[in-house]
Amino acid sequence: MPASDVPASHPRYLSLLTRERIVAGVERGVTSLHGLIAHGRGEAFDYLIGERTHPFATGAIAAAAAALKRARHPVISVNGNACALAAADLMALAEAAGARLEVNIFHSSPARELAIRMMLLEAGARDVLMPSQTHAIQHIDHNRKWVHPEGILIADVVCVPLEDGDRCEALVKNGKTVITIDLNPLSRTARTAQITIVDNLTRCLPLLVQAVRECTSPPESLNAWDNAAALAAAEAAMRGPQAAHSSPPSGQ
Amino acid sequence: MPASDVPASHPRYLSLLTRERIVAGVERGVTSLHGLIAHGRGEAFDYLIGERTHPFATGAIAAAAAALKRARHPVISVNGNACALAAADLMALAEAAGARLEVNIFHSSPARELAIRMMLLEAGARDVLMPSQTHAIQHIDHNRKWVHPEGILIADVVCVPLEDGDRCEALVKNGKTVITIDLNPLSRTARTAQITIVDNLTRCLPLLVQAVRECTSPPESLNAWDNAAALAAAEAAMRGPQAAHSSPPSGQ
Repeated sequence: MPASDVPASHPRYLSLLTRERIVAGVERGVTSLHGLIAHGRGEAFDYLIGERTHPFATGAIAAAAAALKRARHPVISVNGNACALAAADLMALAEAAGARLEVNIFHSSPARELAIRMMLLEAGARDVLMPSQTHAIQHIDHNRKWVHPEGILIADVVCVPLEDGDRCEALVKNGKTVITIDLNPLSRTARTAQITIVDNLTRCLPLLVQAVRECTSPPESLNAWDNAAALAAAEAAMRGPQAAHSSPPSGQ
Repeated sequence: MPASDVPASHPRYLSLLTRERIVAGVERGVTSLHGLIAHGRGEAFDYLIGERTHPFATGAIAAAAAALKRARHPVISVNGNACALAAADLMALAEAAGARLEVNIFHSSPARELAIRMMLLEAGARDVLMPSQTHAIQHIDHNRKWVHPEGILIADVVCVPLEDGDRCEALVKNGKTVITIDLNPLSRTARTAQITIVDNLTRCLPLLVQAVRECTSPPESLNAWDNAAALAAAEAAMRGPQAAHSSPPSGQ
């Protein structure tokens, strides 16, 4: 990534630096231009929850850690935005959970798929599965149906950060337990996944990695996880004025 | 701008056309990739207020028109997003208010500054001031401190659409009356400016131009303008369920 010209003294340094990561992702062919706009939308929702990790997210993180820990064959599905923002954390999550990493993107582009694979390998991933052209999941038409036969095809638990609603729905219909990370509690993805972490990807991934590492015996309470209640809490936080920054937040 | 392939019948035609303008801005070197992200964030906030101009915005437009009309030396500060979205309207505003146009961008790039100037000239602007390397405003460190000695340096009223919080704060500390246009009522820019129009730039600029043209005798009520109340109304509209589209909107 090129050196940033954002001064470290800027009160929104972290948010601006995150923005630079996604721009660097475009420059190295990992992120699509559509991905930039989607990132901006996420920033707006993050603003509304005060740019912090709430209890509805930490609860979901604990449930997700337990699900990953219990899984026989967990897979982490990686798209362009997730890779650009958090390649190293995704690699660490795969390692902590004993999960495979598999590339899957919305807008078909073999070059971008390879760029994502390369970035994950550079971040230290040992192997990265690519979608095949021979094995597909059901209930979805477009490019995103293709999966790797040793990855998502046989996975019982799939973690899909920043996922499209169609594909999230298809994964669930294919019998997978789906964990997603999505700042919009109203999105179809958030509402379809069994476990939705409503939080900024770069903020919650290190917490999820830590939770997986510390989760030696998955609690039975996983079965009692109430995703709808967590989404309602997230929506309430987003709509409630108490969620806003208590002091004037900084800038753009 | 290239012809759009978005059908006019698409329910989100205007929003998609606006998005095309900003993408075209990237292609001609006017807008940064960071600007695309900021635009995505704005789209989300616009969505939350139902993509329409509310009374809190029309009130701010009237106050802004009066402030511009009263100003001895008004200046309109133009960055990449503002130029890509509304070069012609910014030019019309400058003409109606007898204001100078001055280029100022967040991420340092002389090439982009020139591209912005060129686009404003093509839109019909008679002169466009560029930031100097000799004159600066106080209370700000980075690239954005540089101003033109006949423009922002001596301005009493500055209109800065889509502005960064640091610079907005600096302009106020330098004794300027600052008018901004910002879809995020929680942003530092929105909270620091004396007059904040919480509305989509492309929707409110024509209204502001018209208000300046019709404002022959600036009302005394300008002094009574309550920006905090307008921001509170905008936030309430954004968070309240009644503000959302009443039926699920189509597309992204």
